[in-house]
Amino acid sequence: NLHLTGDNHAVSVTHNLLSAFIDNHLMHGNKMNIDPFSITWPRVVDISDRALRNIIIGLGGKDQGVPRETGFDICVASEVMAILALATSLKDMRERLGRIIIGSTRDGKPVSAEDLKCAGAMTVLMKDALKPNLLQTLENTPAFVHSGPFGNIAHGNSSIVADQVALKCADFVITESGFGADLGAEKFMNIKCRYSGLTPNAAVIVATVRALKMHGGVGKIVAGKPLPDELVRENIPAVEKGCENLIQMIENMKLFGIPSVVAINTFHTDTRAEIEAIKTLAREYGAEDAIESNHWARGGAGAEELAEAVVAAAQKPSKFGFLYPLEASIEEKMETIATKVYGADGIDILPVARKKIKQFNEWGPKYTHLPICMAKTHLSLSHDPTLLGRPRHFTVPIRDITASVGAGFLYALLGDMRTMPGLPSKPAGEAVDIDVNTGKIVGLF
Amino acid sequence: NLHLTGDNHAVSVTHNLLSAFIDNHLMHGNKMNIDPFSITWPRVVDISDRALRNIIIGLGGKDQGVPRETGFDICVASEVMAILALATSLKDMRERLGRIIIGSTRDGKPVSAEDLKCAGAMTVLMKDALKPNLLQTLENTPAFVHSGPFGNIAHGNSSIVADQVALKCADFVITESGFGADLGAEKFMNIKCRYSGLTPNAAVIVATVRALKMHGGVGKIVAGKPLPDELVRENIPAVEKGCENLIQMIENMKLFGIPSVVAINTFHTDTRAEIEAIKTLAREYGAEDAIESNHWARGGAGAEELAEAVVAAAQKPSKFGFLYPLEASIEEKMETIATKVYGADGIDILPVARKKIKQFNEWGPKYTHLPICMAKTHLSLSHDPTLLGRPRHFTVPIRDITASVGAGFLYALLGDMRTMPGLPSKPAGEAVDIDVNTGKIVGLF
Amino acid sequence: NLHLTGDNHAVSVTHNLLSAFIDNHLMHGNKMNIDPFSITWPRVVDISDRALRNIIIGLGGKDQGVPRETGFDICVASEVMAILALATSLKDMRERLGRIIIGSTRDGKPVSAEDLKCAGAMTVLMKDALKPNLLQTLENTPAFVHSGPFGNIAHGNSSIVADQVALKCADFVITESGFGADLGAEKFMNIKCRYSGLTPNAAVIVATVRALKMHGGVGKIVAGKPLPDELVRENIPAVEKGCENLIQMIENMKLFGIPSVVAINTFHTDTRAEIEAIKTLAREYGAEDAIESNHWARGGAGAEELAEAVVAAAQKPSKFGFLYPLEASIEEKMETIATKVYGADGIDILPVARKKIKQFNEWGPKYTHLPICMAKTHLSLSHDPTLLGRPRHFTVPIRDITASVGAGFLYALLGDMRTMPGLPSKPAGEAVDIDVNTGKIVGLF
Amino acid sequence: NLHLTGDNHAVSVTHNLLSAFIDNHLMHGNKMNIDPFSITWPRVVDISDRALRNIIIGLGGKDQGVPRETGFDICVASEVMAILALATSLKDMRERLGRIIIGSTRDGKPVSAEDLKCAGAMTVLMKDALKPNLLQTLENTPAFVHSGPFGNIAHGNSSIVADQVALKCADFVITESGFGADLGAEKFMNIKCRYSGLTPNAAVIVATVRALKMHGGVGKIVAGKPLPDELVRENIPAVEKGCENLIQMIENMKLFGIPSVVAINTFHTDTRAEIEAIKTLAREYGAEDAIESNHWARGGAGAEELAEAVVAAAQKPSKFGFLYPLEASIEEKMETIATKVYGADGIDILPVARKKIKQFNEWGPKYTHLPICMAKTHLSLSHDPTLLGRPRHFTVPIRDITASVGAGFLYALLGDMRTMPGLPSKPAGEAVDIDVNTGKIVGLF
Repeated sequence: NLHLTGDNHAVSVTHNLLSAFIDNHLMHGNKMNIDPFSITWPRVVDISDRALRNIIIGLGGKDQGVPRETGFDICVASEVMAILALATSLKDMRERLGRIIIGSTRDGKPVSAEDLKCAGAMTVLMKDALKPNLLQTLENTPAFVHSGPFGNIAHGNSSIVADQVALKCADFVITESGFGADLGAEKFMNIKCRYSGLTPNAAVIVATVRALKMHGGVGKIVAGKPLPDELVRENIPAVEKGCENLIQMIENMKLFGIPSVVAINTFHTDTRAEIEAIKTLAREYGAEDAIESNHWARGGAGAEELAEAVVAAAQKPSKFGFLYPLEASIEEKMETIATKVYGADGIDILPVARKKIKQFNEWGPKYTHLPICMAKTHLSLSHDPTLLGRPRHFTVPIRDITASVGAGFLYALLGDMRTMPGLPSKPAGEAVDIDVNTGKIVGLF
Repeated sequence: NLHLTGDNHAVSVTHNLLSAFIDNHLMHGNKMNIDPFSITWPRVVDISDRALRNIIIGLGGKDQGVPRETGFDICVASEVMAILALATSLKDMRERLGRIIIGSTRDGKPVSAEDLKCAGAMTVLMKDALKPNLLQTLENTPAFVHSGPFGNIAHGNSSIVADQVALKCADFVITESGFGADLGAEKFMNIKCRYSGLTPNAAVIVATVRALKMHGGVGKIVAGKPLPDELVRENIPAVEKGCENLIQMIENMKLFGIPSVVAINTFHTDTRAEIEAIKTLAREYGAEDAIESNHWARGGAGAEELAEAVVAAAQKPSKFGFLYPLEASIEEKMETIATKVYGADGIDILPVARKKIKQFNEWGPKYTHLPICMAKTHLSLSHDPTLLGRPRHFTVPIRDITASVGAGFLYALLGDMRTMPGLPSKPAGEAVDIDVNTGKIVGLF
Repeated sequence: NLHLTGDNHAVSVTHNLLSAFIDNHLMHGNKMNIDPFSITWPRVVDISDRALRNIIIGLGGKDQGVPRETGFDICVASEVMAILALATSLKDMRERLGRIIIGSTRDGKPVSAEDLKCAGAMTVLMKDALKPNLLQTLENTPAFVHSGPFGNIAHGNSSIVADQVALKCADFVITESGFGADLGAEKFMNIKCRYSGLTPNAAVIVATVRALKMHGGVGKIVAGKPLPDELVRENIPAVEKGCENLIQMIENMKLFGIPSVVAINTFHTDTRAEIEAIKTLAREYGAEDAIESNHWARGGAGAEELAEAVVAAAQKPSKFGFLYPLEASIEEKMETIATKVYGADGIDILPVARKKIKQFNEWGPKYTHLPICMAKTHLSLSHDPTLLGRPRHFTVPIRDITASVGAGFLYALLGDMRTMPGLPSKPAGEAVDIDVNTGKIVGLF
Repeated sequence: NLHLTGDNHAVSVTHNLLSAFIDNHLMHGNKMNIDPFSITWPRVVDISDRALRNIIIGLGGKDQGVPRETGFDICVASEVMAILALATSLKDMRERLGRIIIGSTRDGKPVSAEDLKCAGAMTVLMKDALKPNLLQTLENTPAFVHSGPFGNIAHGNSSIVADQVALKCADFVITESGFGADLGAEKFMNIKCRYSGLTPNAAVIVATVRALKMHGGVGKIVAGKPLPDELVRENIPAVEKGCENLIQMIENMKLFGIPSVVAINTFHTDTRAEIEAIKTLAREYGAEDAIESNHWARGGAGAEELAEAVVAAAQKPSKFGFLYPLEASIEEKMETIATKVYGADGIDILPVARKKIKQFNEWGPKYTHLPICMAKTHLSLSHDPTLLGRPRHFTVPIRDITASVGAGFLYALLGDMRTMPGLPSKPAGEAVDIDVNTGKIVGLF
């Protein structure tokens, strides 16, 4: 069932209900005097559909709405998805949905979902989605799959509620943070931990030989084409050079005061020497341990050694801390992340973002004393997907920033980050089909 | 759970996947030479959002798609929803999805979902939705709720698959056709029965005193306002005049050769004399029986007498027949429905529709030997919502017509029929909220 | 000099100044509360540019205007052009420009160019254009060429001011009314004569053998292709049949109470018998005379006989009268023109036009006691360009109607009349060039 | 006559004819395979109309053109206007119009007006406009007023043809270059002199006390408000500080190897000491002379002393030279202007411009060995209107660049330069009117 848990559906329809309320309000006299140009609340759809990125709606005359430029984001970029993952209870979710800011009035006051009288209905649409979905692994151990914010354009973490439930049921809970220690993990620490009140005991950093080789400057992966030969052939210098990327990941975990274990997710083409090179460097630069894991071949048994290392690391003393206080200025908070976590020289706030920050400051601390959720490429530690390894001497452009007050953060767009992907010239879906006799899906992988 | 069976979600995402494939094809060189102006496949959303009726997509430059005018329909108007309800098996659904026509090439050939290599992926997204959803009534009797095409803008019938399963499990199966005998029921007979191969033994026509009063020219219901007093006060002449509407419904069932029973859905304000007036006229004009039913107050027990009457009617001999042969011309088929079922003098095919019919004829019988699904107001037997009772001397304008080859019908738009509703100035959703302590929904009714 | 008199330039820039004022007003707070959807004032350009027919302006954000749907008309369709031709003095032009209605407020009051404080500046831009342009014919006789409203989409007559000046200088003044007696001439009588206070003494109806043949059902002229052979070969029956069209023209002149002379504009392929057929029928059906004119070959001398006949006709007694009083209802006035001048059975006012008429009536007599300017095809006496000869049994659809209060008429659109032409697939301009040594233009004809 | 010479009208209609040809070509099958996204040829209008800056055209279906995003520029920014001013003969104008590049094909080849077969017709429309307009001053001396490209967004110089004619008729010819020595004058030297083959003997730099005061940091002029008091009161330090701006202007003229005279355009509020301060500094920093001129009060007699000084300067030896060779790279040429003429540290070529430069280089020397026409604010020596005096330590952003191959230059947009102005909230036109009795215009000043 590709619809899986239904979370995306619930989020889409909840998000779009608010969108419809906004345009309906504009059309029926706009009593709140909303400035149509100020509206930052898009619509969302759970399809990669680039033709919906920039659209004009409300065409066709007086009874068809008010013409204005807007667009669709991919569902997982929705603030509602972020709220689902960060809400700690039904009550908390109700309040967060009410706090969503969709734009401002013509005289510059923020307008919320509560003001539009939509937050109640939104909560009703989300009430079942708040319940974590219990799935099982191939070895029949339980796992929660709940909420789906990507780690690049959203905060990239599984839900707080699922973690809460899991902690009641198990001795150790492992929760995933999407993409690297510069993305999901940074947001886990600075955003999710702030709202959950929970702190991690250890971090697991996943690495592969081929990814590090690529960060070492060798080979190029093109979607839809077979892996290039260079990535498969042994190349110790490339692996070692690529480890610079891994080292920054390890150092990033130290910034938050917690021990980390590197999990080397092995492939059959990896050579012993390559794996050892990673282990050596990882330990040298501060990982508690670096363990080869081959659960892909041997299932749970293949990850046992890793599990032991993580248990050991988790029992070490740790002193978790946030990277910045909420009271710091918006600029300072973004600069802290950019310089400490990405290794940048600084940030360059572009005019659109600068104007928004000015407005948030005018609105007061409720809109500024928030953590920052950076939307950034996952292909580089920087904002530029072509800068591999551990880039230096770059400045991060802050193109836009939105107040996701409901989710509880400011949402900054770095570089040319897109919030709606497009399909390639030959979409993967072309190969997907069903065997109508057996009901079996073909072409998914 | 307002998402209920998830059918709408599956239909939305399946429909929109095809939309994304279309625009993706246009952008990546348009190898099939699709004429962008010919595209009749919109996008859909399960929200009443009039600002999406007429939109321009693909703006923002070369990498953002090809600019063109299009729009969103409400999800239930999607051809995918119609297919879900009319498919008889997974295999049949796969084929129907492949047959969907989205427009034509610049040299006038039809372009299908199969041509776009999207039908396989669409079927995968729909495969679980094809399984009927088993719910239970308040008295714990089983009921299938499956697929949701409205009876005015779509074909208005529950799924064939649900009926098939039900017929394996029960002696009597009751299936609903949305709105009146001029809408859901006409489409049940002429469309659904053709594809299911099943025929009804009897029809139940639901009537209320207040609706007939309104058809008799008394009172006006305004959404969001309390019922006007005239509809509550006894008014025999109005009820009798309004019965003209009911009589046409009874006569319509006779056109198809099956017996009918009128179920008078009573309210506490109805008077004995009013109910008797309906009974008398219904029987006089050809209903097998007319029974008062008050299941609203007494549950199943309140409908027992009605059930007995339906059983009796169903055992009468019947000779079911379609209203028109598929080989009749498109114009003849539409005229048959308009004159026989609606009581019109004839039809007036507007230029846009005329051009499309010409094209379907050029494409051949696969595109013309199909039943017709009329999109029409449910507020009148005619196309004009202000014509109450049993209107006479009107001509039905056929504004547009689309080939829903996947669903297996031609889809005609009558008058100003909209395929995307709008919200009122005070949307009902404003009153909806949740009690965060109990999780109980408030404000739904 | 293709810019000729500069009238079109002055009209374009004057018209577009008002357009800019409107959108500027909307953007700067819209203090008059103009309903953007009510605006009927387009922009104009003196180029056939179909891509400007339907456009969306004001895109790009807050400082770039308010997004709305609008379009461009061809310059000659501008109300400013109509005003130029109908103004009787500078003072009158100033007042007429001020009376232009561009739309209405959200509470339904008309908004004028005066309200927008634009009429003064508009008059300044038009002040020199009001002076008639004196040109000379190839034989050096004087001629005024002043203003350029087309007879199909505008009122089709030369300026009142030019006629006034001419009447001071000559014994006989000939003024042109574009297209047929159903177009320019009807508007000359009912509109221009009302404002000038002048009345004609006689009408000259121009006919050609080939045009009448075509109205008789023979041949088809396609732009850019040579004349079909059938139009050149002698065909008396076709000419006679086509004369039905001419006869209605003659009858139309009688409706206004003035004598008419038919001028047969001969070509070298016309045969004697064809010309005689026209003469006979024209005289039989009421023309004072029908004269062959070959000024195309012989210059002024070739039109001498015609001139004598016109002088004779002009001296006959005549009793000029309007076809309708201004106080008649809008519907009556349109119906009078359609039935008496076009030979229609009646008119069918479509919803958009009906709504506008309702509004004009609410605004009062200043907006209704006006003559009607019909925008209609010149290819048929009816609204339908395919109905040749003298069509019968047709109903004229009134698609839209605008209050051109400045020009002093209501402007009705019949059928699919376009106010902005498009270029053909091979524009005539492709052949136009200049000999850079001599400065001579080539390819114009 | 506000239409003055008709040049703007001729340019507008000529420019827009090409626009119509482009969209007509797209619609009729696009045989040249033009990439719609590559089109850089806008439409123009001679009105400040910001709502036309960003528009979507071609809406309404198949017969109404192809939908695409485009916009209008102000007429004076048209390449046709630039061509009018730079053409040396009818033949040259014909060729330049043919060389206009409107965009490229889908496979990256340039598309010209010649390719579209429009250049001949364009020349015909422009042929009379090429003849200079002879006007007279208030003292009845002759003056040519010909072509109107602004010095900020265009090249800012009167026509070559007018200069050629003038040189045949007079001993000294004075020609104007719009705005400062960083704008019109730089373009005069580097662009116009290259095409005319003529070289100046001396430059006159116009200065006013109040403008220099403002560059010295005092007072702020707001359109529509009276001059602030600080600009009127004597303030020697401010004048001296502001002279830094004037000094760069003087130095700029030296860069081109020609002597310059400063003309101090006096007002009655200027004090003797202020004027002397300018004279002293101007002479000290290299002007041949600095002369007070009060022709505003005394007519020609008031400029006699200035004229003598200019005659003297013109007779000094000079060695005129261009600032850069055409063969230099595009980047180098822009950098030369920015660093030498504006005093910038360098340039920053933004991605859009960078991509275009890459394309021009691929197209070859015909598209790169051209002078550069910079579109830049006239309020500062830099690209930023807030940097007064003689700014230092700034980098000039090159936002976009277009190949105006017809005009014969590359057209670079610096910073947020707009090519279509907007009206203020109270347009000056509101005050303009006409006295209908006398025909006199009121409210123009």
